[in-house]
Amino acid sequence: MTTFTLDERLRRDGIPICKLGLCELRLMNDRRWPWLILVPQRADVSEVYELTPLDQAMLTFETNLVAAALKNVTGAEKINIGALGNIVRQLHVHIIARREGDPNWPGPVWGFGKPEPWLDEDHKAFAARILENL
Amino acid sequence: MTTFTLDERLRRDGIPICKLGLCELRLMNDRRWPWLILVPQRADVSEVYELTPLDQAMLTFETNLVAAALKNVTGAEKINIGALGNIVRQLHVHIIARREGDPNWPGPVWGFGKPEPWLDEDHKAFAARILENL
Repeated sequence: MTTFTLDERLRRDGIPICKLGLCELRLMNDRRWPWLILVPQRADVSEVYELTPLDQAMLTFETNLVAAALKNVTGAEKINIGALGNIVRQLHVHIIARREGDPNWPGPVWGFGKPEPWLDEDHKAFAARILENL
Repeated sequence: MTTFTLDERLRRDGIPICKLGLCELRLMNDRRWPWLILVPQRADVSEVYELTPLDQAMLTFETNLVAAALKNVTGAEKINIGALGNIVRQLHVHIIARREGDPNWPGPVWGFGKPEPWLDEDHKAFAARILENL
C-alpha cells in the first residue's frame, strides 16, 4: 500500500493551513483571489469517484465546511468549487471566493495571468480567520 | 415555498438527458468536449453548502456516478468537475471529459471560444451511451 505524499507542485504553490479528517487544507499562494485547496490524504487517487464512499462523503463535508467559512470570511458574491487535475493529477479540490470585477471575472481563475504571492503577515491573518470560521 | 424551475440560460445551452433522484442531467450543446451538467431540482440554491445534508450527499453520489459513466464512455484522460455559477446563479455542476490536445487543454473549458452545437443524431447516440453506463 502506497503512503500519501503531497504532490510537489501542490506543495510549492500553496501554504498549509491545517489538517481536517480527510484532507489537508492549504492556501494557494496567490492573493489575487482568496483561494483554498483541499487535498485528500490518500495515495494514488485522481478522480473523486475513486475514493471510497465514506471518503467521498467526508470530502463533500469538508468541501462545504470550507466553502461556507470562505464565504463568511470574504463576503464573496460566489464560491467557485472545482476538481480539475489536468496538470497535477493528485486529487485536489479548489475552493475560491469570487466577486464582480476580480481578475478574469466572470471567467475561471485557472490558467489566468501570473500568481501574486501573499505577504507573510497577510496570509497568516487570513488563515487564522478561516480557522475561526470552520 | 418556491418551486424549482430550470434557469433559462441552462435550458437554452443544453439538451435534457434524464432525471436522477436529485438532479436533472443535461448535455451541454457544445461538442468540443463531452460536457454534462447536473442541476439539483431545488429552488433558490446557489451554493452546494446551501443544500440540506441529505441533498449534499445525493449530489455527491450523482456527480460521481455521472463522472464514472463519462470516463467509461469517453476513455478521457481526466474528468473535470466544477460548480462555478458566476454567470448562472442556479446551482449546477459541470462534469467534463478532457484529453491532451482538446480545445484549451490543460486550461479550463469555461469561457473559451465559441460553442459548436452537436448534430441531432450524434447527441442522441452520446446520451444513450451515457444512460447505459449510469
